[in-house]
Amino acid sequence: MKQYLTIDEWSIIEEGFRPEYNRISESVFSLGNGRMGQRANFEETYTGETLQGNYVAGVYYPDKTRVGWWKNGYPEYFAKVLNAANWIGIDVTIDGETLDLHHCQVLEFRRELNMREGWLERTFTAQLPSGKQVRVVAKRFTSIVDDEVGAIKYCLTPLNFSGNITFTPFVDVDVMNADSNYDEKFWNEVQKEAQGLEGYVTAETKKTAFHVCTGQKIKVTLDGEEVAVDATTTETSKYVASTFTVAANQDQDLIVYKIAANLSSENHPKEQLLANTKQVIAEAYAKGFQQLLLEQIDAWAAKWEESDIVIEGDAAAQQGIRFNIFQLNQTYTGEDERLNIGPKGFTGEKYGGSTYWDTEAYCLPFYLATADQQVARNLLVYRYKHLQKAIENAEKLGFTNGAALYPMVTINGEECHNEWEITFEEIHRNGAIAHAIYDYIRYTGDDAYLAEYGVEVLVGISRFWAQRVNWSAAKNQYVMLGVTGPNEYENNVNNNWYTSTIATWTLEYTLKALKHVQETNPSRYQELVGVMNLDVAKETEQWQHVIDHMFYAEDKDLGIFLQQDGFLDKEQTLVKDLPAEDRPLNQKWSWDRILRSVFIKQADVLQGIYLFEDRYDLETIRRNYDFYEPRTVHESSLSPCVHSILAAKLGDEERAYEFYLRTARLDLDDYNNDTEDGCHTTSMAGTWMSVVQGFGGMRVRDNQLHFNPFIPAGWSSYSFKIRFRGHLLNVKVNKEGVVIENQHIQPLSLTIFDQPQTIEANGKVQLAHQVA
Amino acid sequence: MKQYLTIDEWSIIEEGFRPEYNRISESVFSLGNGRMGQRANFEETYTGETLQGNYVAGVYYPDKTRVGWWKNGYPEYFAKVLNAANWIGIDVTIDGETLDLHHCQVLEFRRELNMREGWLERTFTAQLPSGKQVRVVAKRFTSIVDDEVGAIKYCLTPLNFSGNITFTPFVDVDVMNADSNYDEKFWNEVQKEAQGLEGYVTAETKKTAFHVCTGQKIKVTLDGEEVAVDATTTETSKYVASTFTVAANQDQDLIVYKIAANLSSENHPKEQLLANTKQVIAEAYAKGFQQLLLEQIDAWAAKWEESDIVIEGDAAAQQGIRFNIFQLNQTYTGEDERLNIGPKGFTGEKYGGSTYWDTEAYCLPFYLATADQQVARNLLVYRYKHLQKAIENAEKLGFTNGAALYPMVTINGEECHNEWEITFEEIHRNGAIAHAIYDYIRYTGDDAYLAEYGVEVLVGISRFWAQRVNWSAAKNQYVMLGVTGPNEYENNVNNNWYTSTIATWTLEYTLKALKHVQETNPSRYQELVGVMNLDVAKETEQWQHVIDHMFYAEDKDLGIFLQQDGFLDKEQTLVKDLPAEDRPLNQKWSWDRILRSVFIKQADVLQGIYLFEDRYDLETIRRNYDFYEPRTVHESSLSPCVHSILAAKLGDEERAYEFYLRTARLDLDDYNNDTEDGCHTTSMAGTWMSVVQGFGGMRVRDNQLHFNPFIPAGWSSYSFKIRFRGHLLNVKVNKEGVVIENQHIQPLSLTIFDQPQTIEANGKVQLAHQVA
Repeated sequence: MKQYLTIDEWSIIEEGFRPEYNRISESVFSLGNGRMGQRANFEETYTGETLQGNYVAGVYYPDKTRVGWWKNGYPEYFAKVLNAANWIGIDVTIDGETLDLHHCQVLEFRRELNMREGWLERTFTAQLPSGKQVRVVAKRFTSIVDDEVGAIKYCLTPLNFSGNITFTPFVDVDVMNADSNYDEKFWNEVQKEAQGLEGYVTAETKKTAFHVCTGQKIKVTLDGEEVAVDATTTETSKYVASTFTVAANQDQDLIVYKIAANLSSENHPKEQLLANTKQVIAEAYAKGFQQLLLEQIDAWAAKWEESDIVIEGDAAAQQGIRFNIFQLNQTYTGEDERLNIGPKGFTGEKYGGSTYWDTEAYCLPFYLATADQQVARNLLVYRYKHLQKAIENAEKLGFTNGAALYPMVTINGEECHNEWEITFEEIHRNGAIAHAIYDYIRYTGDDAYLAEYGVEVLVGISRFWAQRVNWSAAKNQYVMLGVTGPNEYENNVNNNWYTSTIATWTLEYTLKALKHVQETNPSRYQELVGVMNLDVAKETEQWQHVIDHMFYAEDKDLGIFLQQDGFLDKEQTLVKDLPAEDRPLNQKWSWDRILRSVFIKQADVLQGIYLFEDRYDLETIRRNYDFYEPRTVHESSLSPCVHSILAAKLGDEERAYEFYLRTARLDLDDYNNDTEDGCHTTSMAGTWMSVVQGFGGMRVRDNQLHFNPFIPAGWSSYSFKIRFRGHLLNVKVNKEGVVIENQHIQPLSLTIFDQPQTIEANGKVQLAHQVA
Repeated sequence: MKQYLTIDEWSIIEEGFRPEYNRISESVFSLGNGRMGQRANFEETYTGETLQGNYVAGVYYPDKTRVGWWKNGYPEYFAKVLNAANWIGIDVTIDGETLDLHHCQVLEFRRELNMREGWLERTFTAQLPSGKQVRVVAKRFTSIVDDEVGAIKYCLTPLNFSGNITFTPFVDVDVMNADSNYDEKFWNEVQKEAQGLEGYVTAETKKTAFHVCTGQKIKVTLDGEEVAVDATTTETSKYVASTFTVAANQDQDLIVYKIAANLSSENHPKEQLLANTKQVIAEAYAKGFQQLLLEQIDAWAAKWEESDIVIEGDAAAQQGIRFNIFQLNQTYTGEDERLNIGPKGFTGEKYGGSTYWDTEAYCLPFYLATADQQVARNLLVYRYKHLQKAIENAEKLGFTNGAALYPMVTINGEECHNEWEITFEEIHRNGAIAHAIYDYIRYTGDDAYLAEYGVEVLVGISRFWAQRVNWSAAKNQYVMLGVTGPNEYENNVNNNWYTSTIATWTLEYTLKALKHVQETNPSRYQELVGVMNLDVAKETEQWQHVIDHMFYAEDKDLGIFLQQDGFLDKEQTLVKDLPAEDRPLNQKWSWDRILRSVFIKQADVLQGIYLFEDRYDLETIRRNYDFYEPRTVHESSLSPCVHSILAAKLGDEERAYEFYLRTARLDLDDYNNDTEDGCHTTSMAGTWMSVVQGFGGMRVRDNQLHFNPFIPAGWSSYSFKIRFRGHLLNVKVNKEGVVIENQHIQPLSLTIFDQPQTIEANGKVQLAHQVA
């Protein structure tokens, strides 16, 4: 844990230069716009510790799998969102001396990520080895208005000398991925050109043959007046640059404006890529940095209008939650159904930048509530488009008849993960993908989605579950053998309660969905039966048989669901009894010891209770919570939010707030000591859930919103915006009670504190907290 | 399965050149002498498919671990017996044209591995692209008399021309390991020299700094007369060669004798390595090829005198069993307690050439019965010397107080394996190491071994077991969670019956062993208690508590021991119902499917019943055998022998023979399609066990040998030699009965067909088969 960032409600601020934390800051201060992303690397040369990261959404490389001992069924490659062109680079020399903060005395240093307006600014004063001092203010952003454009304003002022300043803005695709399995470079050059202050490189990914064209165009001013410079161009392998020198007097502001663009063949014909890039750059250049910035500020204001959470009385919490919302909005805009949300977003390479079940289980609720419903729908369609690959994936594992197993990690629908206990056994992800369809329809009411796309996915997943269970003659019930639940500190267990529960839930929901389509859209139903080659009578009967005869591990004496068979055979020690030096277990204990222990990495039974809470009475929830919480080490960033929401539901407001705190500033405070690899982007959605579903008690039941809010003791108020079926609500909770505004021209019926309420169009309702 | 080798009782013979099988033949025709080993690579250049393999016992390289996803506790390296100097090389050119069978028309080709005399001969007639024909007879051996020496006689005859034949005998240490994790070369050059017909290279292994000096000295004859040749020497990186040309007339026999030696710093001071190598070569050279060969033949005759099995009426079986015995004797001589038996011996790189539990579970009985007891004792001392490393290994996994976990794979006592379900969980290996002590003492009567070395190992292992179990409040018994049994087609299971059984057996035996030492050697006992820091009362009481309260999975209805908790929840299909195209499962099914299935890779419960057979009545053994055998796919070469022995015990002679056949010719017929990687050396000891313990029914109980033989239907007789406590017995079984000769000057009491018998000194006893 490191607390070196300044608390501020709207900005992330670093005061003073900390090279030892540079990689952490590079992650935290990352910029993105859903289409491209950029770690907070320096524009000028920096030979100190750094992890270069420039990413273009959807462009990946299938990196040959690295494995110790090959297991049958492993995928051939891991598809990685790869490090792309460095488009921010501006090398600087001063009278021939390279500006490199690693070799300077840094007299002043400040970084600010302005989240309200969506830009990054770095200000420093550096003394070079020669004694010359310069001041630099470098400001940049990735435009959310034109998501192929990035813009930089690099202002340099000689402080104690007059001299020749040489700039070399460049585009460099000769980059590596730090996590390349075999130390290969992933890009080949296609084309490049440089002329004057303009330059372009088109590169192609090996194997996948994506083309990306990256360009730059430069403008230079001295004390506000444009300077005509005479640039020398350089072209080397996958690299173009324009070098020019300006004589600047002491205290003159010398500004290099760099307009850059990344265009990919995912969105442009390859043969027009260069021309289109030139056009995009020309248009952005014509607007100029300042105009682009103003548009950026406006666009971010609109985003915040819909997704902000305001916390009064706790600036650290305010900063934390805004940072989470900001990063989520930087990562995924929902405009392109081919894209998804990698666990690190555009802030690092780890986990390959690929899609995990995090999307369905954690991110979907955020986008459902804060964006147009098309955004969440696109997340579902993404999986629909991968259905055939999921069927092929299941076939590789021996399943038949259209059974679908969605991959643990994917970019293009193919499985990338290669750890048998996860790849083959952590199959509950399949349930989350089914549940996301339910969640989406519950929230939006868009049940036409079932006929259009949903049912096919549900049937594929149900076929998988029906084949994945087997009849135990010993138990006279179906069992689910050899699985890994959400708690990855158990592998290859039998009858994981969560997995079995979500499996039969899927079967039930699929039966309902089929019936719904049959009743509401009979012709489409017939079409679907044909497309899916569904033997309706036989298959649905078998599914019902599984539903009716499934075994669920439980302990009647304790009144709890059992995480898996034999869980009570473990030594029943508690987290509170663990010596501090043994934590985190995943760094201190050998893997077998973790597996044998009772300790739970992340919510598992409780994840199921969270998803299906309406099935269980409060006492059942409490017994399970009281049993599992003390055994949970929360060594996944996805865990505390679920515990927070359940604690809130059980009235334990203090614990609910405690769990919330563990994730809200996870990256800002480098809580897990790993932010240098990138931010925990998907778990940021869990933080949002803690506030809205936990503190706000928001649920959707029977086509209505329900709120059951409380306020954490240290806060004076908090408020959040919610989109719901065309309505925009502002929910504000303070010490007295809750005020909900309906920013819509239709009245809205909803339930607050378990009481039905109607809020008039553009009206509001105000209720006092209930006395327990 | 490939049956291309000629059946012969004493030789392995390949007639005709089959480049596509060359790698298989290179494994099968391997030579070794316990100190060095050599695949059957060609002397002259060969650019076709080949796996070069030259190995020097005890010289290894710690190859950096390669892994997909790192788990806490994994070792940093895998210690591999590495490919060492090529000492056999003799490049040949004929009037400037390279002799390379890959580019010749091979008119005749024959390879013979003469097992009776211990040499390899390759005879071929080749027509070069120019049309020139030569005949070559290349004979070589690795001496078991001087185990640092190898000798080659390479005879070339021009058949249809007279011309200049150029030879370049060389020593080359610039070699690679095919299974290097990161494609590195493992040797650095220390020194080299070449002069005339002599040359030496000393090389050092990276990291481990072993030095090996390899030398050659050449003699040339033409039609039997020594030829004085004028040699040019070549020295390049890690390589020396002497090149000379001889003018030979048609039909003249031109012979190159190459005397080579490998001396390692394991056996010589580094500073004397070169001088000693020169001396070893000089002495061998002085003796000459023919004299060395005669000594070799005599020495092998003596080996066979003690370890042969003679089968009459089945030449294929005869060849198979002799091949197994020959390879075992080539791999391990038992003279050096630092050495052990790698799963592939000196025939390939796979599995790193390291020590597995195969040694204790399969190889020990062979060496106990066919060699001086010092040989088996050295195998035990090897583990004793690794005790401290085993304690450190257990400490890494969280164990304390001198608990010892022997590694799954090792050369120097440190764990090398990196697959958590094996490395951390396949802990039954610890039991095999304890049981080997029992087995050794049972066979030899050398119970003084306990006080000297045995007890310390037993206490270390018992401490491990006592910490590895945990008390299950649910069962009110001790349980053993998260293990992998011998059946590696199950991972991370609870209460594997075999593991739990051998664990408590170890505790019981350790208690007995401590008591024995206390009674027979009280001063040493006191010393040991101090050395081991043993809290006698507390620790032995705890062990007894575990013995008394251990949970063993079983099914009372079926009357069987359960391989693990929940085994009967699996779908109970049988091997006979598997489609042929699904076999072998490990190549056809994904790993999770194998894990969920009922199918058993190798004897597991039955392994325990085999080890502890005297605990169980015949009906219990039969019920377990009848349950587990039909579920066993025998996809480990170590499996059929155990089933063979149990089938024999249960009177199922036909199945016993069937299982025997599966391993006896495993490599000769490339049964598993993987002999190209090397032979299955350790499982060869299992084949021997099938004959001696299975067909011969040999056991040791109460310090006596027991025999209960039968004869497979197709054989007319078989006989084997057994060493037992100073006696040498010859056991011959034919259709009528059994004849046992006592080749010793003391009488021997033993039990045959459950009847006590005494055989006089140098006498014999003859008994008819019992009528069932």
